[in-house]
Amino acid sequence: MNNPSGSAASFLGIDLSGPTMRTSLVTSSGDVIERRENQIEADKLVSKVAEVVKELRDSHPDIAALGIGIPGLVNRQTDRVIASRDLPSTVREELHSEFMDATGLRVEIENDANAAAYGEYVVGAGRGSRDMFYVTIGDGIGGALILDGKLWTGASGFAGEVGHITIDTEGIECECGNMGCLETVASGPNIVRRANERLHRDGTSSLSRLAINKNFTAADLAHEANNGDDFSLMMIERTGKYIGTGVASVLNLLNIEKIVLGGGVMDAGDLILKPIIQEAKQRAFQPCFEATQIVAAALGPDAVSIGAAMLARDAA
Amino acid sequence: MNNPSGSAASFLGIDLSGPTMRTSLVTSSGDVIERRENQIEADKLVSKVAEVVKELRDSHPDIAALGIGIPGLVNRQTDRVIASRDLPSTVREELHSEFMDATGLRVEIENDANAAAYGEYVVGAGRGSRDMFYVTIGDGIGGALILDGKLWTGASGFAGEVGHITIDTEGIECECGNMGCLETVASGPNIVRRANERLHRDGTSSLSRLAINKNFTAADLAHEANNGDDFSLMMIERTGKYIGTGVASVLNLLNIEKIVLGGGVMDAGDLILKPIIQEAKQRAFQPCFEATQIVAAALGPDAVSIGAAMLARDAA
Repeated sequence: MNNPSGSAASFLGIDLSGPTMRTSLVTSSGDVIERRENQIEADKLVSKVAEVVKELRDSHPDIAALGIGIPGLVNRQTDRVIASRDLPSTVREELHSEFMDATGLRVEIENDANAAAYGEYVVGAGRGSRDMFYVTIGDGIGGALILDGKLWTGASGFAGEVGHITIDTEGIECECGNMGCLETVASGPNIVRRANERLHRDGTSSLSRLAINKNFTAADLAHEANNGDDFSLMMIERTGKYIGTGVASVLNLLNIEKIVLGGGVMDAGDLILKPIIQEAKQRAFQPCFEATQIVAAALGPDAVSIGAAMLARDAA
Repeated sequence: MNNPSGSAASFLGIDLSGPTMRTSLVTSSGDVIERRENQIEADKLVSKVAEVVKELRDSHPDIAALGIGIPGLVNRQTDRVIASRDLPSTVREELHSEFMDATGLRVEIENDANAAAYGEYVVGAGRGSRDMFYVTIGDGIGGALILDGKLWTGASGFAGEVGHITIDTEGIECECGNMGCLETVASGPNIVRRANERLHRDGTSSLSRLAINKNFTAADLAHEANNGDDFSLMMIERTGKYIGTGVASVLNLLNIEKIVLGGGVMDAGDLILKPIIQEAKQRAFQPCFEATQIVAAALGPDAVSIGAAMLARDAA
């Protein structure tokens, strides 16, 4: 972007996907200038966003546009939030125009996984690739597809739902109504469910330190695995194999050059990445596996906000 | 295509995917003018193609180009056949230039499933859609993806391998090396395997007329199902459910507006199409299912040859 005065525009990205609202102010090349974290309530969404934007604009008058990652389905033709588990319909109806009115900025809204994928593509682990598939593994499993540099969202905006491909026709029921979805075994809460079932079945005394505290999380499991707890390690490895099975299906369908894996479950690092890659290698067509790189995401919890800011930049 | 003389050019398409070579001469709008079927041997491939082309050019001097559907992986940038189970490497090395030299025509070569998909897209069941996924279910299960009117073949030309997505992590071993691929339960030979296993397990006397003849095919099974044989009907329905499971995964990943199903197994008609659609509806995200049409292919055994001719037309 040319700017005769020498000061390039900056862009603001906000992630509304968690209980914490995360804001990143980034340069036009995607470098983070400043970060904010704020607690939000659904019914004060717009006013909170407006407050944070105002504060940042006071100190950075060059902010050119705002991107917002939304936990729900967004139709970018109409700029409407079509569906969201987290935002009540009364809140989401006119969200886009409300954000514009309240902030005085041009606003782009996008599904959170799509925004994260775009962030990883432009400035993160996907940089340099033409096509990329992004998988985020946390409380749920989401995904997004980028083809030729653009988000490819399909006929009605839902493309990329890798968490809901069937990997076991006889598997347990998923929240989505299907059975045996990848998400039913590999999301954070389902890792904990599987671990608890196993501890329960086999008796807990000698199996794992985890059994001492019944209310453990997937992050605790990863932590114990890193500390050498064999049971936790096995659970993480098996989870990686499930994810690798899903990744292999994506590879065989799309022969895509890069798979980027993000989300809280990937905080386990190589303990989970290695079995993912191993299983994908076992299950995918050899030329599909050989043509791809399977890597961990690079932007961590900033992926959605940075991606949203980059979407705001590129929609200009 | 404008042609001041009033006689539009025609295009030739050849399908080399079976033991029978199928040739279609089509108008520039894809209507079939003439069909040929010839037996071929792999070591006389080029001379046989040249012979058929010569005969047809003698009576149709307006043939502008030739498209050939090949049972193997084709790199269309280099016009080379990379891999093929059916064509020995000695034969395929310089196939493209040999075809050009022997026929005197401009020649386009393409993978057979890709050619069939393109045929269905341009003049068959996919007509009018922007994006389409094609599945062919026969001795194996193949597929191809068309996005924005173009074959989307991925990083190394392998995209669309829906037959090798995992639908059962614990399933039986597939020829591809993976376990539990869709192909291991739903291809023609695997339908027969499953039926035989079931007949063997349950005793054959009262189950089905098929047991009388041990050497039945998937087509025989479909035929008996059409005649009201309950066992055959059940086998076809279960096969449809497996295919529908794969279709649901494609829908959730790609949110694609049209799925076209072809190949010999689809000759069972509504007996298999209905359970496919039913299972896809059960398993796919509702908005993904609602945004799609799942239909039977329209071009039958001409799909590859017509599609190859249309690829020759559009590469001009």
